[in-house]
Amino acid sequence: MTDIVRADGRAPDELRPVTIERAWSAHAEGSALITFGGTKVLCTASFTNGVPRWLTGKGKGWVTAEYAMLPRATHDRSDRESVKGKIGGRTHEISRLIGRALRAVVDTKALGENTIVIDCDVLQADGGTRTAAITGAYVALADAIEWGRSKKFIGQRSNPLIDSVAAISVGIIDGAPMLDLPYVEDVRAETDMNVVVTGRGLFVEVQGTAEGAPFDKRELDALLDLGVSGCATLRDLQAAALEAS
Amino acid sequence: MTDIVRADGRAPDELRPVTIERAWSAHAEGSALITFGGTKVLCTASFTNGVPRWLTGKGKGWVTAEYAMLPRATHDRSDRESVKGKIGGRTHEISRLIGRALRAVVDTKALGENTIVIDCDVLQADGGTRTAAITGAYVALADAIEWGRSKKFIGQRSNPLIDSVAAISVGIIDGAPMLDLPYVEDVRAETDMNVVVTGRGLFVEVQGTAEGAPFDKRELDALLDLGVSGCATLRDLQAAALEAS
Amino acid sequence: MTDIVRADGRAPDELRPVTIERAWSAHAEGSALITFGGTKVLCTASFTNGVPRWLTGKGKGWVTAEYAMLPRATHDRSDRESVKGKIGGRTHEISRLIGRALRAVVDTKALGENTIVIDCDVLQADGGTRTAAITGAYVALADAIEWGRSKKFIGQRSNPLIDSVAAISVGIIDGAPMLDLPYVEDVRAETDMNVVVTGRGLFVEVQGTAEGAPFDKRELDALLDLGVSGCATLRDLQAAALEAS
Amino acid sequence: MTDIVRADGRAPDELRPVTIERAWSAHAEGSALITFGGTKVLCTASFTNGVPRWLTGKGKGWVTAEYAMLPRATHDRSDRESVKGKIGGRTHEISRLIGRALRAVVDTKALGENTIVIDCDVLQADGGTRTAAITGAYVALADAIEWGRSKKFIGQRSNPLIDSVAAISVGIIDGAPMLDLPYVEDVRAETDMNVVVTGRGLFVEVQGTAEGAPFDKRELDALLDLGVSGCATLRDLQAAALEAS
Amino acid sequence: MTDIVRADGRAPDELRPVTIERAWSAHAEGSALITFGGTKVLCTASFTNGVPRWLTGKGKGWVTAEYAMLPRATHDRSDRESVKGKIGGRTHEISRLIGRALRAVVDTKALGENTIVIDCDVLQADGGTRTAAITGAYVALADAIEWGRSKKFIGQRSNPLIDSVAAISVGIIDGAPMLDLPYVEDVRAETDMNVVVTGRGLFVEVQGTAEGAPFDKRELDALLDLGVSGCATLRDLQAAALEAS
Amino acid sequence: MTDIVRADGRAPDELRPVTIERAWSAHAEGSALITFGGTKVLCTASFTNGVPRWLTGKGKGWVTAEYAMLPRATHDRSDRESVKGKIGGRTHEISRLIGRALRAVVDTKALGENTIVIDCDVLQADGGTRTAAITGAYVALADAIEWGRSKKFIGQRSNPLIDSVAAISVGIIDGAPMLDLPYVEDVRAETDMNVVVTGRGLFVEVQGTAEGAPFDKRELDALLDLGVSGCATLRDLQAAALEAS
Repeated sequence: MTDIVRADGRAPDELRPVTIERAWSAHAEGSALITFGGTKVLCTASFTNGVPRWLTGKGKGWVTAEYAMLPRATHDRSDRESVKGKIGGRTHEISRLIGRALRAVVDTKALGENTIVIDCDVLQADGGTRTAAITGAYVALADAIEWGRSKKFIGQRSNPLIDSVAAISVGIIDGAPMLDLPYVEDVRAETDMNVVVTGRGLFVEVQGTAEGAPFDKRELDALLDLGVSGCATLRDLQAAALEAS
Repeated sequence: MTDIVRADGRAPDELRPVTIERAWSAHAEGSALITFGGTKVLCTASFTNGVPRWLTGKGKGWVTAEYAMLPRATHDRSDRESVKGKIGGRTHEISRLIGRALRAVVDTKALGENTIVIDCDVLQADGGTRTAAITGAYVALADAIEWGRSKKFIGQRSNPLIDSVAAISVGIIDGAPMLDLPYVEDVRAETDMNVVVTGRGLFVEVQGTAEGAPFDKRELDALLDLGVSGCATLRDLQAAALEAS
Repeated sequence: MTDIVRADGRAPDELRPVTIERAWSAHAEGSALITFGGTKVLCTASFTNGVPRWLTGKGKGWVTAEYAMLPRATHDRSDRESVKGKIGGRTHEISRLIGRALRAVVDTKALGENTIVIDCDVLQADGGTRTAAITGAYVALADAIEWGRSKKFIGQRSNPLIDSVAAISVGIIDGAPMLDLPYVEDVRAETDMNVVVTGRGLFVEVQGTAEGAPFDKRELDALLDLGVSGCATLRDLQAAALEAS
Repeated sequence: MTDIVRADGRAPDELRPVTIERAWSAHAEGSALITFGGTKVLCTASFTNGVPRWLTGKGKGWVTAEYAMLPRATHDRSDRESVKGKIGGRTHEISRLIGRALRAVVDTKALGENTIVIDCDVLQADGGTRTAAITGAYVALADAIEWGRSKKFIGQRSNPLIDSVAAISVGIIDGAPMLDLPYVEDVRAETDMNVVVTGRGLFVEVQGTAEGAPFDKRELDALLDLGVSGCATLRDLQAAALEAS
Repeated sequence: MTDIVRADGRAPDELRPVTIERAWSAHAEGSALITFGGTKVLCTASFTNGVPRWLTGKGKGWVTAEYAMLPRATHDRSDRESVKGKIGGRTHEISRLIGRALRAVVDTKALGENTIVIDCDVLQADGGTRTAAITGAYVALADAIEWGRSKKFIGQRSNPLIDSVAAISVGIIDGAPMLDLPYVEDVRAETDMNVVVTGRGLFVEVQGTAEGAPFDKRELDALLDLGVSGCATLRDLQAAALEAS
Repeated sequence: MTDIVRADGRAPDELRPVTIERAWSAHAEGSALITFGGTKVLCTASFTNGVPRWLTGKGKGWVTAEYAMLPRATHDRSDRESVKGKIGGRTHEISRLIGRALRAVVDTKALGENTIVIDCDVLQADGGTRTAAITGAYVALADAIEWGRSKKFIGQRSNPLIDSVAAISVGIIDGAPMLDLPYVEDVRAETDMNVVVTGRGLFVEVQGTAEGAPFDKRELDALLDLGVSGCATLRDLQAAALEAS
């Protein structure tokens, strides 16, 4: 790493201040209000005994996610998707990404015929909302699974949670790889990448996009390294939040 | 008032603990996170210079509101209206109520050709979400108008804000009038009423509905008295929040 | 009452000419074409043996209502909600109001597992369409219930209809309370109120809105008195229509 | 024609009783409530000075139509298309048919840059709603055009109405051609045909469908003859309605 | 026929070159890529054992069709109906026409409780897409029925296919009847007609529309003759395609 | 590479037979029918002079893409998104991916104020439809740009096309990296990755997803190598197609 100093004073490989307020919601079986600097996402996990009809009788559970933004989460107000009557492509894409990330660490057989729906609602956005959502959603998911076990909806033999999962954004700005981009950096990044990494350090998802110029293998490797290291820090924060009673 | 004691220990004419966290949002021109006991509503006011096309050139401004609930704000998860592709009747009705309530205290001529959109998003619901929304929205609105004045989008001569406005729910439970019903009381109420009252104590909106048995004039009067008195307390809390810098 | 004379020559506390053409429809189990001056609403009641799935097995019936306007019921043509692909807030709100008003006079236990859907279609609008709809809908409902009893879908022991219900608009114009506002008065009213009153004179719904200046308790009382008296006249007209064979 | 007698006592080539109540609507520029036996359709014509953007500046007018049914116009209640959020294929198809039929007798150049929207709302249905709609719509259209001429929106030189137009259903039942089918005959018809004919006896539209067995040229000819003769009678009824002041 | 020569050199009663590529699709139970000059339609037939719920237990099958156009099938690109969120009137109307045409030659009792969905997607359009769709759909349907018989979903006793069906467009251009109109002729036609004719020469559907001037019986007869003769040629081409193994 | 032989006899690093039929469409400014084994995608490029309103006056062009599947492109029929009234998440996500991939090789300044819409319609699906779409779309795009230059809508000075772009799927099956997965392999893959690579060998997009077990850096590297090499072959096929006149 060079000694570049970023607008907010961070080193290139430094996360923004991350906080995880577990059990934020009085109603949900699991929940977390997660913040990465100015990005605030409320994640709730809703546990239902039973599965959608298409999965009935297969002895497997289902985990899915929905992502959305409040209209004034962003600098300018966006119209509500409920008012427009349809969900935009970006919203769909991120919801699907969060769902895949969480399912990667769940043994749906061990979950049994139960459904967990994770809602990630962005209350305030300042870059990295999808990765914050995944990171907070894991905490909500873990608590919802624990709730299901305590209520005996889930069998006691094996834990459906086979690993933890976290995610972070990385990007190349003025040629230098940077960790955890806020909005001002995100719009300037030549390459933008989101990595989803398990607690054990394996990749669940790698999504890199050239926003400006295409990138080469060396740049890709630098970004992956940064992302893996950032996710390791997040894994420790998740564990700390879940250990606190 | 009798010496009935309610489940949460309150007197019949007592509000739940109310908090108003002003300027919650980093982006909105005005905002407030308001809580009434377990009910938490995030209100943001988005100021835009200019008005919708149908109002252009009339020298008047426009104030409108949108209300929504996060899917797991409630005890059981509801499907998102964006996913269903349409907004339910209840959501429409409450959005319209909030808009009317706010417009009642705004001089749209003095506002000039500016638009303020108020978003009220229920993060957690425990009864009285629409009245909490109106009460919090007023604080967000006042700050957005102040912002517009400071930026000179609004003329300095006259203040568009001609009064304050607050709202509260009242109801008859087991024959007794009660102020500020949480969910467990709301479902039991024979009559349910929302009153919207200005800082000077005048009615903007009175909506009373017999949920069980129809009600008579004496009961109606008792409810109105309770409501007016509750709104006076809320007016003072709004003023205190707005005075704090 | 003062000796104000209104544009159409009525006294302030006088209804427009009201007609109720019962059994207008050849197909519906109950129906009424109701007119209040230039306002014409066709109300049909459709009786179905059985209830929606969410109510099955609870030994209770269901009454619901839908309100709509023909596109050229009004002075200017409005686009059809079917063409726009969604129902507006006003339509939703009025449909819900009509349903609540009717359910207030129905004993759903005595109705048994039967469903009655009331359709109120405004063929021509000249103010007070929602209150005309409620008043006409009661007649259609009464006939549909009678039909259900004659067909033995409803038990003979107890009558599901526990009272009658009617509704009227009242408002304050140039400081004076007025009964039954046509369109030209409605747009000028400072305060606009709809009251829904049972045959016995109890309130089912009170909805008062300050369109211009907020209103005080004395004005509210004057409006309520006018409304109760207007509804008593409507109750007699409903009874006369239902007695005619 | 044979001496077959139909369920309602008519001869095979006899229309049901047809009534045309012209100027039914207080608001529309032209209107007619038309009945064919138990089929009742309210047709209104809304005149607007100006044309849709895609037609602006071409010196031509526009005539279009929308058809719809009230939910309980039929024996069993149908869900509203506004509630379903989309318009069914049958509704679309009939709206388009009515529009084409009317445009066939309008000289859009002579109409000038004016728009006429015809709404045909079926209040009660007993077969032949689309043909009744066309026949009634012509009367509403003629009055709206006359209104436009009287207001000088339409030039005085040439009349935009170049002919009249009417429509009727015909069908083959038990091998015999029949005119003007009510619902009970319509469901039994082997072949169902709608013909749209101008006052001068020329075809605007011929739509024949084999509902049961395919049909041959001889049957087609018999149906066309019946239809032409029925439309001639309707033309005279339209003229009588329009002559009455 | 006169010795008029058309833009593409054809005689007035001559079809464009027609090709039928049977079994184009690797997945569908029946399929055909049909071309009429520049018009190319891909027709697939999807066979499902079972029927929609409303038909269950009646011992009858169901055949339905959906028609659509690729966005750039036409000279100018049209927006996708999936993006617009609703299906246009023309699409609905043609889908319904194709379904009726096919059902006219299917004995749904002999089909048994099986469903066949025909998809007709226009890959390139140059006039006559709906008639090409019907003609190609018959080939796909025949193969899907054969597939159902070979798999024993359909009983062996009686063939559900009771005849073949084809369709063609005809029109009057400059006063002369013409067969099989490409786009450039279609836009100029005074009268436009589509005829759907069975292999035995009987009519299933006759749809004639005056685009310019209304038409008389003599013109109608000339068009019908042309259409019947064109469909006879198409019947032979269908048979040849189905005989080829 | 090991000497694993795949179901279709290919080596692990071998593409399926790829064909590119350039200028398939008679109407589009650029088009290509591309096949990868059983996957067939029709790509059309529609050129419009001018840009969407939000881009007007910025001296830049716009390239966007829409992806869709015919209902029976797949083994089982899917409902049309136009019939469902909304576009699924997968469709949105792929449309956005194709658009980003193409924009990466277009200099929108050099394109000038012109819009190119690429439609990628999957006629038959057998795995890798999104990567086939990108690869074919490039050919259609190149021809549309050439058309725009020949018509002088695009300036002659600089070529808007700054590189070529192709895409391929790679995956890990039974632990072995494989190139260009057909459907049967795709469903078995533990990790699934799509890479989008420019003609010069730089990455535009890397999307790797763990479908089964998470993957490590070594596996990721092996997949990237395979993808880069597959895209180099596709680049040569694209160039050959574009050189052919």
